Order: sequence, then C-alpha cells, then structure tokens
Amino acid sequence: MTSKWIHNFNAGPAALPLEVLEDIQTHFLNYGGSGMSITEISHRSKWFDDIINDAVARTKRLLNIGDDFRVLFLQGGASLQFCMIPMNFLADGQSADYVDTGTWSTKAIKEAQSMNKTVRVAASSADRNYIYIPGDISFDPAAAYVHITSNNTIKGTQWPQYPATSGTPLVADMSSDIMSRPFDVAPFGLIYAGAQKNIGPSGVCMVIVREDMLKNIPDNLPTMLNYNTYAAKNSMYNTPPCFGVYTVQLVLKWLEETIGGLDKMAAINAAKAGKLYAFLDASDFYRATAEPGSRSLMNVTFRLAAEELEKRFVEEALAHDLGGLKGHRSVGGCRASIYNATTMEAVETLLDFMQDFAAKNG
Amino acid sequence: MTSKWIHNFNAGPAALPLEVLEDIQTHFLNYGGSGMSITEISHRSKWFDDIINDAVARTKRLLNIGDDFRVLFLQGGASLQFCMIPMNFLADGQSADYVDTGTWSTKAIKEAQSMNKTVRVAASSADRNYIYIPGDISFDPAAAYVHITSNNTIKGTQWPQYPATSGTPLVADMSSDIMSRPFDVAPFGLIYAGAQKNIGPSGVCMVIVREDMLKNIPDNLPTMLNYNTYAAKNSMYNTPPCFGVYTVQLVLKWLEETIGGLDKMAAINAAKAGKLYAFLDASDFYRATAEPGSRSLMNVTFRLAAEELEKRFVEEALAHDLGGLKGHRSVGGCRASIYNATTMEAVETLLDFMQDFAAKNG
Repeated sequence: MTSKWIHNFNAGPAALPLEVLEDIQTHFLNYGGSGMSITEISHRSKWFDDIINDAVARTKRLLNIGDDFRVLFLQGGASLQFCMIPMNFLADGQSADYVDTGTWSTKAIKEAQSMNKTVRVAASSADRNYIYIPGDISFDPAAAYVHITSNNTIKGTQWPQYPATSGTPLVADMSSDIMSRPFDVAPFGLIYAGAQKNIGPSGVCMVIVREDMLKNIPDNLPTMLNYNTYAAKNSMYNTPPCFGVYTVQLVLKWLEETIGGLDKMAAINAAKAGKLYAFLDASDFYRATAEPGSRSLMNVTFRLAAEELEKRFVEEALAHDLGGLKGHRSVGGCRASIYNATTMEAVETLLDFMQDFAAKNG
Repeated sequence: MTSKWIHNFNAGPAALPLEVLEDIQTHFLNYGGSGMSITEISHRSKWFDDIINDAVARTKRLLNIGDDFRVLFLQGGASLQFCMIPMNFLADGQSADYVDTGTWSTKAIKEAQSMNKTVRVAASSADRNYIYIPGDISFDPAAAYVHITSNNTIKGTQWPQYPATSGTPLVADMSSDIMSRPFDVAPFGLIYAGAQKNIGPSGVCMVIVREDMLKNIPDNLPTMLNYNTYAAKNSMYNTPPCFGVYTVQLVLKWLEETIGGLDKMAAINAAKAGKLYAFLDASDFYRATAEPGSRSLMNVTFRLAAEELEKRFVEEALAHDLGGLKGHRSVGGCRASIYNATTMEAVETLLDFMQDFAAKNG
C-alpha cells in the first residue's frame, strides 16, 4: 500500500478531517468496547442511541437552535428532498416561491412541477449564466414557502446573506455549505443537506425542520416520504444509515472540539477562499467565473484561456497530488472545492502550483 | 481500547465477515492508492465505477443471472421499497397478490393499501401467529405481481421453496436471506434487500429487477421513486451511498472467493441452523417457535419456560460474549440470527452456553 496522501479538492464526496478518518479506522473493529464494528451494532442499541443523540445535540449547539427545531437523518440525498418538500408542504391550491440559482435549484423546481405542484420562480440568475445571486426579490406573501439553494457547487456562487421573506418559511438546500458558517436559523422552516460535502460521507441527509412545519403534513403520504415518520421515531422508524450518522457525529465533534465552533470555521473558510480569489483576481492567466459579492467560499470556479490548457492544468495538478480540480462536466473549466475539511495548507499548496503553472504556460 | 470480540447474533445490522472488516480498516485512509479514503472519493471516479461494476458483476455471477436483469443500489431500505413497488408496478385498475407471513409482509401490504392500491391477500399464516409458511396458494392469474417476504426475521420462518405463480412475476423482500442460498431467479420480476443482514451495512438496498418490468413504469413518478432513474444511470443519478456499495462489494468478493459461492454458503448455513434446531428439538428446556418445514436458517427463534428466565438467559449470554439474543420487542422470547457471516464456531459457542444454562436452571 502506498502512503501517498493527496490534497482533495473534490466537489463531493469530498475531503473529511484526517482526525475523523483516523478515529473511524482505529475503532473500526470494536466500536466503544462493544466487540463489534460500527457497521455491526444494532440501531436499537444504547451505542447507537448515544451516537444519534449526540449528533443531534451537537447540531443544535453548533447552529444555536432550540427545541422548536428537530434534527433528522434521512436517506436518498438532496434529490429525494426535492420531491418530499412539495409533497409535505405544498397542498393543492397553494403556491411556493423558488429562487433559481443554477443546476440544483433548477432540479428542485422541475421536480415540484413534475408533481403538478404550483411553483413560482420568484427570481433567477439564468440571464447571466447563474454567475450571481439575485437581490431585491419580491416574494409572494401567500407562498407556502420560499426555496433557495444556499451554495451552488457548479457555478460557484453562495448567498452572502439569506433573503428576507416577511415570515414565509425559508426552505434551503444547504448540502454544500452547511456548518461552514453560523447563521440565524429562525426564518427557516426546513434545511436539508446531503452530508457528503461538509459533514460526512454520502448516504445520509441531514434535515432540520421547525416543529410547526410538521403539523400540517398530509397524513396520506407514503410512510417513508413523510417527515413525521422520522420525527416521531428519532430518525429510526426503520434502520438508519448507521455508518453515515456515526461519521457525521464525529465531524460535528471535530467542528466543536478541534475547530472551536462555526465562528472559527467561518473565519478559516473565509481565509482559504480569500487567498484563492485574491490570487485569481490578480492574475491574467486565471479568471474567477462568479461575480464578486456572490462568490462561494466553498467552490471556487475559474477558467484558463483555453480548454486544452485547462485539461493540462487538471492533469498536471493531479501529478502534483492535487486532486479533483476539474469543473463540473456540465460547465467545464476548473473548480477547487474547499469545504471545511480542506486545510489552508492544501490551499497554499494549490496556489504554489497555480503560480508555477502560470509561469510555465503564460 | 479493549480487544474483546463478541459473537454477534444481532438481527440487523448484523455480523459482517471479519476479513471484510479488516480489509476496510487497512485501506480506510487510502483507497486503492488514490490517496483518499473510500468516504472521500468521487462517485464519478474510475475507482468508484470499478467498485459498483464489480458489485453488479459479482451479484450476477453468484445468483447465476443474465443480462435480462439489472442490479441496482438504492437508499431508504426495504421500507422505501414497500411504497416504490406498487407505485411503479401496480396501475389503477390492477390488483396485486401479497402473501402475509408476518410483520414485514404486513407492512408491505399496509403501505400499498395506504396508497389506495388494490391488494389481495392471497394467503396468510396469521391464523397460527405466523409460525409457518402457507402452502398450496391460489394466485389471481390477473395479478400484476405476487409479493412475498422470503425470510421472516421476527417469527423465524423462511420459504423452503418459492411458490409457483404460473408466470405472474414474483416480487420478494429478501432483506434477511439474500445470498444465503442459490435459487432460480427466472420467476422473479423484482428482488429487494436492505443490505444490513447478509451483504453489508445499513443504508444501501440492493434491487434486482427484470428488464421487462422497467418498460411499463409510469413516467410521472417522482424522479427518485422511479426504478428507471437508477437503471438509466447505473445507480448514480445522484450520489449513491458509496461506503455501503463498497462494503457490499467486499462481502460479495468474500462470498465468491473465500466461501466459494452460494452452494457452499447454503451448506454452511444449513449446518449451522441444523445444529441449533436439533439441539432445541432434543431439549425440554428450550422450545423452537417456528414449525418444522417453515423454519428459517437465518433467524432461529425459541422460548424458555418463563419471561424472567429468558431475560436472564439473554443477560448471561452477553456476559459470556454472546450478543444480540433477545427476540424482537414485538414478540419477546429469544432469537439467534445466524446470517452468512456468523461462523460455526459462534454457533457451537452458543450451544455450549445453552447447555450450561439449561443444566444450571433446568
């Protein structure tokens, strides 16, 4: 086995904190003295109860949220949420506002529409290829909810602050920036996040839902598509994705105990992204694609002068142990995903390489 | 860290082969020389392509199935399948036959009914508390499909052979006995199995579907609830549960390369269960609860003379490093789940303990 360890700029599944991975590895054959692997313990055991309860408690502390919210763990990723949200919260005769900021927002809109739900696109940045986050949006005061995508992995944009909705519950896909910065949870009715970018492996989706949202869910939904099924049983109506929840718990522990909370995490993320954008903006060789003011601190998207050069950039970077720098296949270009677990050291190593590559090819 | 290693008779999540767990642990920080953990690699990478393609190929070889079947990996467990099956395969105006052999069958029936689907209970063993598998069933020749639960974890019964349906596709929940024995896949339209008993960790559900079943699926279903979404994209429409699929791949490799295939696995399973049932039948102290001819080779359910004694049995067994012997909370009693990864050594250690316990308390 090689001991090579690359700097991982994957968009998701993505880098996890090394200390979390080492913890999982060390205890993999014998979780908590149980004599069993974490993959073998019963979800009805005290061991797993402690894991899921700790994951919930840490989520509440990290986001500073109270008992008016429930923290749930589902399966199916954000894509399953695209159908569950209108199914649970958008009755016939009601309309919901969606903001279209690119691929994932568009998918959420299309999924709701395919279910014959009434959806209004309250704002869109399609006019300029989604390189910005719309401002000054007029929302329908009667909307059942306002749906946004907090961070857009493909176009490299992120809401700098969340829109005011005058009391209409915000529903947000935070798959790619949950736990990357503190924010006020109060205006949100529901937050969902596939774990595989900032908080864990693929196969587990965190859902944070306000208690009052649970009261009006129709009772004729399929069992596994009703949020109340999960809320009533602490996410254990059926067997949950135990390994995924366990890994999330360890990442949240790392966020609290090693990093020191979301203010500290946000400062680190701002510093990492700040260095990259400053370099890009000062360069004639590279060009950041997202508009200042809307730029993502998680996914830094950029172009070189030609596709052939970009291809070589990605290949040579990999040869220098810098992985995952290819842009999404739908847009091309380059992308450095620098989620929570990506270190400043990784970013600085990338910058050194980028300077060298520009010097040799400029 | 203690090095204690218990014999794990959990009903699920359950024991996994030690050599698989050790393999995962050894390579956990650096999968296949990638320099990344299996939890960090992209599902769009060659590494993961190789994993999922190998898992599919091994499934086809182990079950001796051809290219008229698709092997898919979903999330949501068997419980999500309970709603997806009627949604995909039971149109308005059609009826499906279900056989009710206990808790999980009953849930599948109720879920279909709650969706206003027309379901006929073609046979049931409710009359004698589900301790047997019904025989000589008359199926509706017009039924869209016949649904069965191949092994019943709670009552400890298992279909000794599958019912003849005169061409109506069989749909089977094989969560608790998939890959435990060979069988003829030809009569099956769809087989599903939550992985967490015989083939992997929780959070991944194997679905084996016959190509012709995919042709009549309505095209207005939510994306993530349509089997064609998974079939069209090799289970990667969205991010799959990568760690789960990887573990399943390693378990299938163990089945093929260490065990030597399903004939050998079935012989081992028959020997393990045979020893336990022979002991129970010869005992005045313990009593097997399932009827001969319908007994599960996976979940051996038994009673002692009194609940107090059963409680002590489970506690003392655990003190002897024999874990997971408590019966399901809905029926009480005791249960030894002896899936593929439970060794003959574990069964013999259990039998020694059972003899001692009977001698001391008889």
